[in-house]
Amino acid sequence: MNREFTLIEKLFKKRIKNAPLGVGDDGALIEKNKQTYYVLSQDTMNEGTHFFPNHAPRKLGWKVLATNISDISAMGGTPKYALLSLSIKKINELWLKEFSKGFFSCAKHYGVELIGGDTTKGSTSLSVTIIGEVKKKYVLKRNGAKVDEDIWVTGELGLAALGLSYKLGETSLSGNILAKALSAIEIPKPIKVNMEKFAPLFSSAIDTSDGLVQDLQHILNQSNIGALIYSQNIPTAPWIKKYNAYDFVLYGGEDYQLVLTASQANRKKIIEVAMKNQIKLTRIGVTTKLKKFQLFDKDSKLITTIKKGFTHFG
Amino acid sequence: MNREFTLIEKLFKKRIKNAPLGVGDDGALIEKNKQTYYVLSQDTMNEGTHFFPNHAPRKLGWKVLATNISDISAMGGTPKYALLSLSIKKINELWLKEFSKGFFSCAKHYGVELIGGDTTKGSTSLSVTIIGEVKKKYVLKRNGAKVDEDIWVTGELGLAALGLSYKLGETSLSGNILAKALSAIEIPKPIKVNMEKFAPLFSSAIDTSDGLVQDLQHILNQSNIGALIYSQNIPTAPWIKKYNAYDFVLYGGEDYQLVLTASQANRKKIIEVAMKNQIKLTRIGVTTKLKKFQLFDKDSKLITTIKKGFTHFG
Repeated sequence: MNREFTLIEKLFKKRIKNAPLGVGDDGALIEKNKQTYYVLSQDTMNEGTHFFPNHAPRKLGWKVLATNISDISAMGGTPKYALLSLSIKKINELWLKEFSKGFFSCAKHYGVELIGGDTTKGSTSLSVTIIGEVKKKYVLKRNGAKVDEDIWVTGELGLAALGLSYKLGETSLSGNILAKALSAIEIPKPIKVNMEKFAPLFSSAIDTSDGLVQDLQHILNQSNIGALIYSQNIPTAPWIKKYNAYDFVLYGGEDYQLVLTASQANRKKIIEVAMKNQIKLTRIGVTTKLKKFQLFDKDSKLITTIKKGFTHFG
Repeated sequence: MNREFTLIEKLFKKRIKNAPLGVGDDGALIEKNKQTYYVLSQDTMNEGTHFFPNHAPRKLGWKVLATNISDISAMGGTPKYALLSLSIKKINELWLKEFSKGFFSCAKHYGVELIGGDTTKGSTSLSVTIIGEVKKKYVLKRNGAKVDEDIWVTGELGLAALGLSYKLGETSLSGNILAKALSAIEIPKPIKVNMEKFAPLFSSAIDTSDGLVQDLQHILNQSNIGALIYSQNIPTAPWIKKYNAYDFVLYGGEDYQLVLTASQANRKKIIEVAMKNQIKLTRIGVTTKLKKFQLFDKDSKLITTIKKGFTHFG
């Protein structure tokens, strides 16, 4: 798989240029005007790879837009417009109606307007392009983190991976935790916030689409620093703590929450803006000059072998 | 099929709003700055629907970008950026290399830069979002045509449909006409022009992706006018004239040329700019106050039953 990713990297990603922020961030930036960039991202979800054929269409409609919105938030941007390319095997009226309900309810929730796209015949596949706006001075890049900053996460982690594990028949769940886990994997809810107040408080961000460890590692690599994280500080469900299922928290993808870094001087302001916007924000560790990712388990023992995160391909 | 399209229209297209030009044009417009819009369009091509599994990947890479560039030109815009979502069944190094060669050679030819996208596992599907720029006062809309204007087309029509017919085993071709027809369907070449000089000369435009008759009909409907067209004036290949195969010219899609309308007063300037940019531009008829599409065959007999055009779905 590594060699394969290197090929795609070489053939496509390395050739991405010109836009102020090219490669490796959650979205591409193009000039809007003196103060503002448009931030753009395109993501595709394919049946059989990203969702099961029996995925409820209303939830799918929500999810395909929500995951794209998450990319915009991770850049400090506010989502504005979307284009939707919908490939379907045949026209199923009920499926389309349900899908559009989910899509537009997510659009309404986050203030996004559909401005274009197309519908074509093919294996079921959903491709969304999302366009957001971000003030140039508040863009959150992966390379913006500095030494001795706080590391924050929004929401709770690990629930989407737990839900996926249940759907794959690998974990048995019931009751409240089942509902929460299914909701996390099927109807992800990226934060909704006044980004112009929120983004200026942070120095870098990424969304946890591929798992906390892998995503945070991108910030560390690109910012040329290390981190020290205690697993017990990471917000997650009591079920995961009880069964010590921290692999979901550390390596599970698709939570679409944010990992952010911020100066310690901003703690008070961050807590205020989180309360005002009813966002759960938790401090999980600090950045370090030592360029290592020091991850401690729930008993505060150093995890010496850090696994790889979630991957969408293959 | 009509009912099916009506459903998609109702569920999605009618809900497209906000952007200065919402529904029914080749691209969506969003504000860049006081003078300029960004024009955006997203199109998907699926294996089995839009291309054969054995389609040469280099040609496919060219085509998927070229067809999107055509949408920008049809709005009077200059293509600038693209995002590419590539779904593939498995990673085939040769295929990917060839595909990327075709994609980037098209990008270079038209001055487009790849700024993002993703690669995912799934049935082979290519989704491109193209972003162009257009001066607000020169946007070419489908509803801009006026009565007693000239109707122009770029390039030659019918060749792509002829090539498709050959590939489907319906028409037998050889030699020069085979090469031209295959090139038209496999490596479409939308016009390359200084749009800031070109667009101001015209009042409306559309690209011939679904066939001249169907595409021109959109302009007529939205501009609330009629047209008078003589088939023998439409530029096409001698083979098509010889075999009286005008159905390819009138109803065949995928030529990705432009149909434009312009004041008769602009004729001289249009011919000048066409020569300067080495663009083949041909006057094929006029718009009329009478809200009918009067189409005459090569013997100047009125065609009383106008067929439907090419459709990508189904």
